[in-house]
Amino acid sequence: MFVLVNLKTYPCDPATVAEAARDATEESDARIAIAPQTAHLGRVAATGIETWAQHVAPVDHGSHTGHTLAEAVRAAGATGTLLNHSERRLTLADIDAALDAAERAGLETIVCANNPDQVAAAAALGPDAVAVEPPELIGGDVSVATADPEIVEKAVAAADAVDPDVAVYCGAGVSTGDDVAAAADLGAEGVLLASGVAKADDPRAALDGLLSGV
Amino acid sequence: MFVLVNLKTYPCDPATVAEAARDATEESDARIAIAPQTAHLGRVAATGIETWAQHVAPVDHGSHTGHTLAEAVRAAGATGTLLNHSERRLTLADIDAALDAAERAGLETIVCANNPDQVAAAAALGPDAVAVEPPELIGGDVSVATADPEIVEKAVAAADAVDPDVAVYCGAGVSTGDDVAAAADLGAEGVLLASGVAKADDPRAALDGLLSGV
Amino acid sequence: MFVLVNLKTYPCDPATVAEAARDATEESDARIAIAPQTAHLGRVAATGIETWAQHVAPVDHGSHTGHTLAEAVRAAGATGTLLNHSERRLTLADIDAALDAAERAGLETIVCANNPDQVAAAAALGPDAVAVEPPELIGGDVSVATADPEIVEKAVAAADAVDPDVAVYCGAGVSTGDDVAAAADLGAEGVLLASGVAKADDPRAALDGLLSGV
Amino acid sequence: MFVLVNLKTYPCDPATVAEAARDATEESDARIAIAPQTAHLGRVAATGIETWAQHVAPVDHGSHTGHTLAEAVRAAGATGTLLNHSERRLTLADIDAALDAAERAGLETIVCANNPDQVAAAAALGPDAVAVEPPELIGGDVSVATADPEIVEKAVAAADAVDPDVAVYCGAGVSTGDDVAAAADLGAEGVLLASGVAKADDPRAALDGLLSGV
Repeated sequence: MFVLVNLKTYPCDPATVAEAARDATEESDARIAIAPQTAHLGRVAATGIETWAQHVAPVDHGSHTGHTLAEAVRAAGATGTLLNHSERRLTLADIDAALDAAERAGLETIVCANNPDQVAAAAALGPDAVAVEPPELIGGDVSVATADPEIVEKAVAAADAVDPDVAVYCGAGVSTGDDVAAAADLGAEGVLLASGVAKADDPRAALDGLLSGV
Repeated sequence: MFVLVNLKTYPCDPATVAEAARDATEESDARIAIAPQTAHLGRVAATGIETWAQHVAPVDHGSHTGHTLAEAVRAAGATGTLLNHSERRLTLADIDAALDAAERAGLETIVCANNPDQVAAAAALGPDAVAVEPPELIGGDVSVATADPEIVEKAVAAADAVDPDVAVYCGAGVSTGDDVAAAADLGAEGVLLASGVAKADDPRAALDGLLSGV
Repeated sequence: MFVLVNLKTYPCDPATVAEAARDATEESDARIAIAPQTAHLGRVAATGIETWAQHVAPVDHGSHTGHTLAEAVRAAGATGTLLNHSERRLTLADIDAALDAAERAGLETIVCANNPDQVAAAAALGPDAVAVEPPELIGGDVSVATADPEIVEKAVAAADAVDPDVAVYCGAGVSTGDDVAAAADLGAEGVLLASGVAKADDPRAALDGLLSGV
Repeated sequence: MFVLVNLKTYPCDPATVAEAARDATEESDARIAIAPQTAHLGRVAATGIETWAQHVAPVDHGSHTGHTLAEAVRAAGATGTLLNHSERRLTLADIDAALDAAERAGLETIVCANNPDQVAAAAALGPDAVAVEPPELIGGDVSVATADPEIVEKAVAAADAVDPDVAVYCGAGVSTGDDVAAAADLGAEGVLLASGVAKADDPRAALDGLLSGV
C-alpha cells in the first residue's frame, strides 16, 4: 500500500511531517511519501523520506519564467510528482506533455481524476498511477471508500480496461486506518491524503493510525 | 464521410460559406457541416446547412458571464459542437463536464486531440467522435493523412480499443479531394478543415474539390 | 444613469427581458442596455434595445477557434461589451488587448474590477467606464452602495485621479430603486445588475422599480 | 541601478551564476539579484546573493496544491518576487492578490507589463516597482532602450503620474553595459535580463560587462 501525504500550502512544518513519516516507515511495510511545496522539496528530501512534487509544468528547459521544471524538482530530491490535482488542473494536452516531462526527468507519476471516466482517460496517457478523488469529498470528514465505494471499484475497473499496468489510488476524506483498509478492499493500491496528517497535532500518531489499516 | 468546416474567427462571410456548403451537399452523398463563431450560429443555421458550435462551456445555467452555454448554441441552431480544439484547450475535467453539457442540450460532440494517446483519453470520456489534429500541421499546406499517415491509423486503433462506438476524424492541412480520400483510406470517418474552404475565393469550388475525394 | 442588465447564462428568455427593457426606456430618461449570451445577441438587438456583449476576446481575425470576436458581436447588434467580469477574468495584458479589439469594432467598454485599486488600474487602460463589484456581494441581497458605500466613493475618486473621462459604475446586489439612488448619490454614473431583473417573474416591474431611483 | 537576472527554466547551474553575481557585486556599487526556479531558491540564497522568486501565487495558506506560496519562497531565502512576467501572466485581480501575498510575506515586488498603459495599471496596484518589457523584444538581440527608447520614457512618465513611489525598470534584449547605461539615461532605475547572463559561457564576464554601464 502506498500512502502519499500532500502538504498542499498548509502552514505545517514540512520537515517535521517528513521526519514523522520517515520514522513511521521504519516500523511498517507500507510505502510512505511526502509531497511538500516546491520550495520545500530539498528540506523534505534531506530527511530521507520519499519525496514527491505536487506538480510539474508541461515544458522543457527554456523561457518559462515562474514554471516548475521536472528536472528542477528531481534535482531538489523529488522522485515522483502529482499531476492534474483538482487544485491544479491541466488541459488534456498538458497532462500528456507533463507526463513526458516527468519521464524525461525520471519522476514517477500519479494523474488525479474526478471519476471513473476521467480515470480511464488519464490511464490512456500512460502514467504510473491514477488517483480518483471525487471533488465533493475532498477536504471532508468522510472517506471516498466509505462514502462512495462504487466509485473506487469502477475506477479500478476503468483503469484496468485501458491499461492493466496503471495502478489506481484513491483520495478524499482519507484519515484513518479503516479508510485505508476499505480502500485496499476495493482494489486501490494506495491512498492520497492531506489534512489528516499535515494538520494533525501529532503527525506520527496520525500516520501510525493510517498504517494500522495496511 | 463527414466534412466539418471550421470558420474560426476568419474574416469570411459565414452565410456565403454556409450557402455554398448547403448547395454542395445537395449534389453529394457526403455530410457537410459548418462551425461558425457563436454570434453567427443563427445566420448559418438559417441557410439550412448542418451547423456546429466551435466550443461550449463546461457549465449549466447560472452565473457564468461571458461563457457559451450548450443550450444557447442549440437554441441558435447548432446540432453539434467541437470541444478542446487546439485553439481552445480545456482541462480533462472540463472536457468531461462540457460533454455532459452537450448531452444535456442534445448536441453531437467531437473532442479534438493531438496524438493517439490523447485520442484514447478523449474516447474514454464518451464523445460521439474524436479528431486527431497534430498541432505542427494545423494551418499548413500538407494534410495529416499525407504527412503522418501512421498517426491517423494509430488514432483509429486507439479509439477503437477504448470504445468502438466513437468515430475518428482527422484534421490539419486537409484541403483537397485527395486529402479526403487518403483520410478515408486510413480509417477516418470524417475530416476537419478550416482555411481551405473558409479562406477560398470560391468556397463552393473548394468544397466540390474536397467532395470529389469522398 | 446607465442601467446594464447582465443576463449571464440564466435560464430566462432574453427577448422577453429585452422587450420589457425597451418598453421601460420609452417611459424613462434612464439609459438601459441588455447583455445577453453571445448566441442571443441578434434576438435581443432585434427588439430595439441597446445591446451589449458579456465579453470579447483579446484577438483579431484569425485562427482563434471558440473565441468571441469583437467584430462578430458588433455585427450581431452589440454596441458595447463588458470585460473582465468576475466570472470571466482576463490577464492585464488581455484586458488591454480586448480594449483594442473593442475599439477596432466600435464597441463601448466597461472593465469590471473588485476594488478601488483595481478600478484605478483598469482606468489606466483607457476604457469608457469601469465598474466596481466587490466579489463577496455579487449575487447577494444587499447592494454594494448600502453594504459598502465607501468602496463606491473610493472607486469614483480612484478612477478620477487616473483619468477623469472614465465613468464609474457599480454593481453587486443592486435590485431596487433605492439601490440605484444610493449609487448615484455616491457618484456612480451607472449600475450593473443581473438576477434582480433576469430572474424576476415580471422583468418590467423590476425595471420600473429600478428606474424609480433615477 | 538594480540588475535582476532571471534564470527562467534555463539549463544553467543556478549556484554558479549566483556565485558569479555575488562576486561581481563585491566590486560594484550596483545591486544585483538572481531569480532562479522555485526549487533552486535555497541553493541560490545560500551563496549570499540577493535572491528573488520568479512568481508567487495569489493565495494564502490552505488547499492550493501545486501553487507557490509567498511564505514558502521567503522561507527558502527569497526577498523579492517578479509577478505577471510575460511567461506567467496573471489576471488583474490575481496581480492584486499576489501583491497582498508578497506584502504579507515581506517580499519586495516587481510587476511586469508590456507597455506604458499597462505600466500605469500595474503601478496603481502599489508594487515596489514595475518593469516594462515589450513582448516582441524579449529574447532578442536588441535592447528595449535602443530599439524603443520612447517606450521606456513613457513608462517612467506613466508610472510617475500614477504613483511616484513606484520604481520603473526595463527589460527585453538587455545584454551589455551600453544597454544598462541607455536604460538609466531614459529614467529606468533597473534592468531585467535573462539569457545574456544565464546562458553566457562566462556569467561573471557577462555581469562585469553589464556593470560597466552603471
